[in-house]
Amino acid sequence: MTRPQAYANLLERSAQLADVSNATQLLGWDQETMMPRKGAPSRAAQLATLAGVAHGLLTAPEVGDWLAVCEEDPDLDGTERAQVRELRRDYDKATRLPRVLVEEMARTESEALAVWRDARPARDFAAFAPYLARLLDLTRRKAEAYGYANEPYDALLDEYERGMTTEVVRRLFDDLRARLTPLVSTVLERRGTVSSACVRQDLPEAAQAAFGLDVIRELGFDLEAGRVDVSAHPFCASAGHGDTRLTRRYLPDDLRPALYGIIHEAGHGLYEQGLPIEWDRTPLGAAASLGVHESQSRLWENIVGRSLPFCERVLPRLQTHFPGRFDATDAETLYRAVNEVELSLIRVEADELTYNLHVMLRFDLEVALLREELAVKDLPRAWNEATERLLSITPPHDGDGCLQDIHWSMGSFGYFPTYTLGNLYAAQLFDAARRALPDVDALIRRGEFAPLLEWLRANVHRHGRSLAPDALIEQATGRAPSAEPFFAYLQGKFGGIYNV
Amino acid sequence: MTRPQAYANLLERSAQLADVSNATQLLGWDQETMMPRKGAPSRAAQLATLAGVAHGLLTAPEVGDWLAVCEEDPDLDGTERAQVRELRRDYDKATRLPRVLVEEMARTESEALAVWRDARPARDFAAFAPYLARLLDLTRRKAEAYGYANEPYDALLDEYERGMTTEVVRRLFDDLRARLTPLVSTVLERRGTVSSACVRQDLPEAAQAAFGLDVIRELGFDLEAGRVDVSAHPFCASAGHGDTRLTRRYLPDDLRPALYGIIHEAGHGLYEQGLPIEWDRTPLGAAASLGVHESQSRLWENIVGRSLPFCERVLPRLQTHFPGRFDATDAETLYRAVNEVELSLIRVEADELTYNLHVMLRFDLEVALLREELAVKDLPRAWNEATERLLSITPPHDGDGCLQDIHWSMGSFGYFPTYTLGNLYAAQLFDAARRALPDVDALIRRGEFAPLLEWLRANVHRHGRSLAPDALIEQATGRAPSAEPFFAYLQGKFGGIYNV
Repeated sequence: MTRPQAYANLLERSAQLADVSNATQLLGWDQETMMPRKGAPSRAAQLATLAGVAHGLLTAPEVGDWLAVCEEDPDLDGTERAQVRELRRDYDKATRLPRVLVEEMARTESEALAVWRDARPARDFAAFAPYLARLLDLTRRKAEAYGYANEPYDALLDEYERGMTTEVVRRLFDDLRARLTPLVSTVLERRGTVSSACVRQDLPEAAQAAFGLDVIRELGFDLEAGRVDVSAHPFCASAGHGDTRLTRRYLPDDLRPALYGIIHEAGHGLYEQGLPIEWDRTPLGAAASLGVHESQSRLWENIVGRSLPFCERVLPRLQTHFPGRFDATDAETLYRAVNEVELSLIRVEADELTYNLHVMLRFDLEVALLREELAVKDLPRAWNEATERLLSITPPHDGDGCLQDIHWSMGSFGYFPTYTLGNLYAAQLFDAARRALPDVDALIRRGEFAPLLEWLRANVHRHGRSLAPDALIEQATGRAPSAEPFFAYLQGKFGGIYNV
Repeated sequence: MTRPQAYANLLERSAQLADVSNATQLLGWDQETMMPRKGAPSRAAQLATLAGVAHGLLTAPEVGDWLAVCEEDPDLDGTERAQVRELRRDYDKATRLPRVLVEEMARTESEALAVWRDARPARDFAAFAPYLARLLDLTRRKAEAYGYANEPYDALLDEYERGMTTEVVRRLFDDLRARLTPLVSTVLERRGTVSSACVRQDLPEAAQAAFGLDVIRELGFDLEAGRVDVSAHPFCASAGHGDTRLTRRYLPDDLRPALYGIIHEAGHGLYEQGLPIEWDRTPLGAAASLGVHESQSRLWENIVGRSLPFCERVLPRLQTHFPGRFDATDAETLYRAVNEVELSLIRVEADELTYNLHVMLRFDLEVALLREELAVKDLPRAWNEATERLLSITPPHDGDGCLQDIHWSMGSFGYFPTYTLGNLYAAQLFDAARRALPDVDALIRRGEFAPLLEWLRANVHRHGRSLAPDALIEQATGRAPSAEPFFAYLQGKFGGIYNV
């Protein structure tokens, strides 16, 4: 086989893999938004079959042959080399896992998820514990199959955040925690000084939906290349280039879940819509990592969406969409309301300031569990002690403690850190964007989001997966990922609001 | 390989094929109902990839091996034998077509479709003619590859209506035409005696939608195992057991398209919902044929939905859904209105009486084209002459003549006859149902559709694909497919309405 033929075959196979992946995303989106109740078993079967089809397409022996032919060719240009490198990465990951392990993981995850769904409301950790132990055991075997430099957890991180290591995460998190803890303590002492009353009003759903659409359209989300529907938990699904789907939720008596939910998902969606069309359906055409994806959602949700200039921009629109409801509100009051800090036991309900403490807690416990420094039976105690240490509160039961997240029941160990990495990247990227656009606050105040979006397009989106996350951040910002910009952002913002 | 293992492998592969097919249907449904405009190219790629995946799963050499092992085993029970027979049929059809022919057909159909979309509004047959000629040539090659008993058209019919032959269709159609032509002439002479004025009113879309849902729910369509959305052309898609999706359309000033459109699609949907769950995701679990499918839609749409008892049933509900709009209408007037016969050049707009003349015209021309008894360049003349002969009108241009249907541009020769076969089967099945349920009119008048649905479930739906269409009809009705019951139905109904 000639090299051009082998390379063409790889690209064709990559396109098929992208198509199956996009079809899978559509099926998943439909499951949460449109599917009739009785379609669930059929849909589960379809998703399992498509996963098997994708695995078969990726791990077919001919793919290994084509890769080998291309890798031996010194004449590949830079892009071709990167395409081959990324597909090699996917191929190796997929072929290194023995089929029997993949099947046992899928089966165990499916059982564990069902048990967790009952165990959480029943606050019954003992019921879930044996499944968690089995999943940890399988996860260790998975890490061994993948291989790693220093410790098994590295292999897990690498699945979600390419090239990231336990050591780097620990250094970033230790740094952030050391800075954050005193700030959180002080802000929490002054909790009573900020009120969210102005956004906790009865607001009609239709108006919340229309307002949300207005906002994301102005941010630059292309509604001819996407849509917005309702689901229980908001998410962003990519059904292919030109087809990015967001979902929204809402509370009848609080503006925040709908507004910041849709901005968050639109942040993911803007990234998807900005991925390089010339690399569409190739290995390089995908997002760089979960952490980079999260950086885009958090940048728009928190750094832009919870800024004073943004509040100044949206207040008149709020007054139009909800006649009479915001006439007595000024931008400063709105700004303080959407940045209210509250003590929460639940990660997904946590505010911007305390959120990362929840993530760090999970990271520490995951690493300890993987290393067998922490026994599964001791997890609830360890969780509660860590919560007490970080937030000075103790979960009343495991349902609001170590059973609160779905991730572990799905075998997703190593995923949590990407949330905080996303926050770190977001702040670091926004600092760099501000250097390039010194008047970014004025732009936001005027509703001119295009320059910021263009900066993100040029420095993040258009690179697809051609750079590893840390290299992407370093290239875009001039420095390796660091906790400093994020902490400086938090200190400036919450220090101001809470007069620290 | 042992026979049980080979059989298990065949069923597993069949399940995967069903999953990919259902996923494909969902993608197609989404394309027409939900997909944002810019998602079209991605969706086309996904559909092409899934078609290739399905083809690969079906035609893999191991499938041939498993079939051979099973076919040599004398101990297969009747169901197993039928499963193997149906999968063999699919396998042979898929493997007999050379890959190069499949690809050339796909390419030509795609080009022809694009040309047709412009040629129809431009009334430009000359632009479309070369594509039609190429498609006919490819279709002849396809028929040769499939093989046939008497003539190439048999192979095409067999794709849509298993076991049906040109000879049988011709006999049925000749019989129907001979009976129908004088009836149509007489009715058309008396056209002025029936008015559809009472259903041609401005009716709000939301009320039309709600009314349609009420109607199909009462017919027995399970909305927890399906849903209804809006599309330009109504259709029914099966995204798997428990997930049957109908689409509706509506005109603001005419009740009929929305009402009879949704009943028609619900007829398809009731069939899908009634397919045997124990055969789900196996070869036998599919519908028997296009003609049988159409028999279910037409039975509910026309024989039930356009009956006097049905009009008596729905009139009070119409009056509730559209306050004041039907107060002056009685059931007889409604019945006559929804059965108004009009002379139409366009098949899809034709009424129940004249519809089949349009189908017969296409059948004759398709057969002549395939046999090369009719040259492509002579098609417009032949079309217009046949229209004049059948309906005493001549198309003013080819856009309303031989360019009006999408089917040929998609390479679907042999499809049209299934529409009329569906009508024949429907009348024959309803006759048999009436023998089993002598009070079926009273049941309909009371809105009790369950006994009729149960009869169809028992005699049609639950057989899946285990019987060939003609055997299914014969088993259900006691006689081979015939034009007589359908003509008797038409004569009784339109003879009464038009006082013939």
